[in-house]
Amino acid sequence: MAEQLARDSQYAATVLKTLSNIQRSDALSKIRSGLIKAKDEIICANRLDLELANQSHISSSLIKRLDLSKNGKFDSMCDGIMDVARLEDPLNKITLATELDEGLNLYRVTCPVGVLLIIFESRPEVIANITALAIKSGNAAILKGGKESLNTFKAMAKVINHVLEIETDVPKNAIQLIATRGEVSDLLNQDTYIDLVIPRGSNQLVRSIKDNTKIPVLGHANGICSIYIDEFADIEGKAKRIIVDAKTNYPAGCNAVETLLINEKLLGTEAYKSILESLVSNEVTCHMAPELLRDLPSSLKDKYSKLFVEATERDFHHEFLSLDIAIKTVSDVKQAVEHINRHSSKHTDAIITENEENANIFLNGVDSSGVYWNCSTRFADGFRYGFGTEVGISTNKIHARGPVGLEGLVCYYYQLRGNGQIVGDYLGGGGKKAFIHKHLDTRGMRLK
Amino acid sequence: MAEQLARDSQYAATVLKTLSNIQRSDALSKIRSGLIKAKDEIICANRLDLELANQSHISSSLIKRLDLSKNGKFDSMCDGIMDVARLEDPLNKITLATELDEGLNLYRVTCPVGVLLIIFESRPEVIANITALAIKSGNAAILKGGKESLNTFKAMAKVINHVLEIETDVPKNAIQLIATRGEVSDLLNQDTYIDLVIPRGSNQLVRSIKDNTKIPVLGHANGICSIYIDEFADIEGKAKRIIVDAKTNYPAGCNAVETLLINEKLLGTEAYKSILESLVSNEVTCHMAPELLRDLPSSLKDKYSKLFVEATERDFHHEFLSLDIAIKTVSDVKQAVEHINRHSSKHTDAIITENEENANIFLNGVDSSGVYWNCSTRFADGFRYGFGTEVGISTNKIHARGPVGLEGLVCYYYQLRGNGQIVGDYLGGGGKKAFIHKHLDTRGMRLK
Repeated sequence: MAEQLARDSQYAATVLKTLSNIQRSDALSKIRSGLIKAKDEIICANRLDLELANQSHISSSLIKRLDLSKNGKFDSMCDGIMDVARLEDPLNKITLATELDEGLNLYRVTCPVGVLLIIFESRPEVIANITALAIKSGNAAILKGGKESLNTFKAMAKVINHVLEIETDVPKNAIQLIATRGEVSDLLNQDTYIDLVIPRGSNQLVRSIKDNTKIPVLGHANGICSIYIDEFADIEGKAKRIIVDAKTNYPAGCNAVETLLINEKLLGTEAYKSILESLVSNEVTCHMAPELLRDLPSSLKDKYSKLFVEATERDFHHEFLSLDIAIKTVSDVKQAVEHINRHSSKHTDAIITENEENANIFLNGVDSSGVYWNCSTRFADGFRYGFGTEVGISTNKIHARGPVGLEGLVCYYYQLRGNGQIVGDYLGGGGKKAFIHKHLDTRGMRLK
Repeated sequence: MAEQLARDSQYAATVLKTLSNIQRSDALSKIRSGLIKAKDEIICANRLDLELANQSHISSSLIKRLDLSKNGKFDSMCDGIMDVARLEDPLNKITLATELDEGLNLYRVTCPVGVLLIIFESRPEVIANITALAIKSGNAAILKGGKESLNTFKAMAKVINHVLEIETDVPKNAIQLIATRGEVSDLLNQDTYIDLVIPRGSNQLVRSIKDNTKIPVLGHANGICSIYIDEFADIEGKAKRIIVDAKTNYPAGCNAVETLLINEKLLGTEAYKSILESLVSNEVTCHMAPELLRDLPSSLKDKYSKLFVEATERDFHHEFLSLDIAIKTVSDVKQAVEHINRHSSKHTDAIITENEENANIFLNGVDSSGVYWNCSTRFADGFRYGFGTEVGISTNKIHARGPVGLEGLVCYYYQLRGNGQIVGDYLGGGGKKAFIHKHLDTRGMRLK
């Protein structure tokens, strides 16, 4: 069952990869029209999901994320499909061209990865978003949504499959939507057919997937982001605003700051007090390293005693996802870099300083997907980066890192076009001819 | 033990990644001098390996690969280090630059992957080759050679470690060489510290590594390459030369052809007979699909009866690595593409045709790391592609595909440089500012 499904996806992928950008973008436009036409049915199904959610005492924030009918969410979901359709074609770009010899030309060409298995929780609009990204990038996708949005998911799946089958050149099986959890665990064994798994959801979801598959997984389990306030930071103008934004703008986001490292030279200064005050006055609980907790500015201690607690070692490896932050001092930028390389989850880390040399030590030394200077970690996001949308944020060390847009869903292959050349004629293969290896200009070069 | 070793590598990687191209290339030059100075000791150790190999009845071809003293192998190994040193710096290249807003600039910058675990069999010169690629690309590497070259390996390791420690800015632990098989299996569990495993060796080696680690593995287990001879092929001028080269130039190579697909319209023609004759006259055993075996041209059948055998289904999924080839017919280029996408190992596949339309269907449809038109599959090689050297050939679908040179050992991260920007000021984050998202020209742009 899972094997057949995965095999069907792979076959669809081999057809989809040969379609032109026009054919792929046109399919997205048709899907958008189909969803708009079926709006009533989809909203109806969504209402059923909401009712079931209300009955099962799901948190109100989760219910809010489920609801497609409010604040023009349905329409903006449909518009989002066209935003993706209008993006530049990520396929068939030539990224390297070399004349190996006269009449023997090598091209490195972007191509789809193949078959994606995408597993996400709750928000139903993700279906439209991911469908658009997958088709635009020429990848077949198997989608599994959360059980909370099952009815919405089914209603949308029906429309998408119908449109693909009747109105487009994209094979119907290019997008397959599955409903049960059991199927996922079987699919995670289909490493012959599935090329990449993209989980979007909680730490537990991502970890359990990583532990149960040989297929490469693109994503992040944790977002343990740190900000280092250097001795040369502009505290009032930058540092305070940035840490408050990074912590409070959306504490549940993976790009929210979880650890604050302060240069020890700031200890005992007004600046130090001011930094702490900016956090506690915004109701942030500060998990202070023990030596800092003993030495708190007394005025703060009295006024906000409940918001200062002692940090455990674990707090510095921890993603709070709430109005909590772990705070410690470091002796200099190098120690900050070392702390981050040891404790962070390689998501996004920032330095606040006016000293360019220290900034460069940090930018060059921290080994994370995003390394920032004088701005909030919350900018780590595909939309903010200008990618139109994102399929997730990767903390992997290979393939794609940081917010992953269309470019993270493509890879490349080599085309070699000759007119009868054989290796036996060349040096190293038994012959006497030498290679030319002349690099050709590839700017804006496409295969078709 | 393995954990400490991996942790040391990771720490070394964080230092190595901050070094300049000059520092990295200088270290390579020092290693080369060190090896040349220690030539006598290394050749002595190599002789010991050869003696032990002779005693243990290892095949003569393997012994030949072990021997560093013949044909200037030692010197060309040392020269190879400088070839890598002289390659363009793969790090700190800016591959995307976007002005998100005034004073808020995003850069995508190439960086090392981190820590590589490289496992290879027999050939001792690979140590020098991989050490050079790793240091040049800013990656720490843990190397494990085959037991046949253990003494050579130890002698070279001693020199490399000593040179790094005394004469260079590269931390000594950036290159660690391990000797026992037991350590490898422990290291394969160190997914916290090791970022990429690169096995170079037999199918069994690669498979057993893939089955025993969560770390991404770059490489290929099989090289099942196919050539399709189209009805519009130039048989005498191209097809025959190419298949003979692809099969006989080096049958043990992963880029040797293993499957020949012939357009069925050629059946019964002189061309068909001529193709088969070119193979059997070069002592290639042809594993013929049953219906073809029944209908062999009689003159060939009489003269070369022993070289025609019946193909099993398995032969079309099989890497012979010998003077054997599986042969069947297909109805057209589309069926050839389907056969290859189902049976090949996504290594390198070629079409021989004078018909551009068919060539494009093939080039566009085959989902392999290398797809060739009118040339031998044997060109799939880092040196021939102009990469200077290669760390291996990847049949993965993500990160790096085909022959992997320096570029396959780097990834990227995002730098965001601001002057106090927070997300709360922008649309989507609670504020009113819009992003500019202006793409900047990155040609030749580097961070330093």
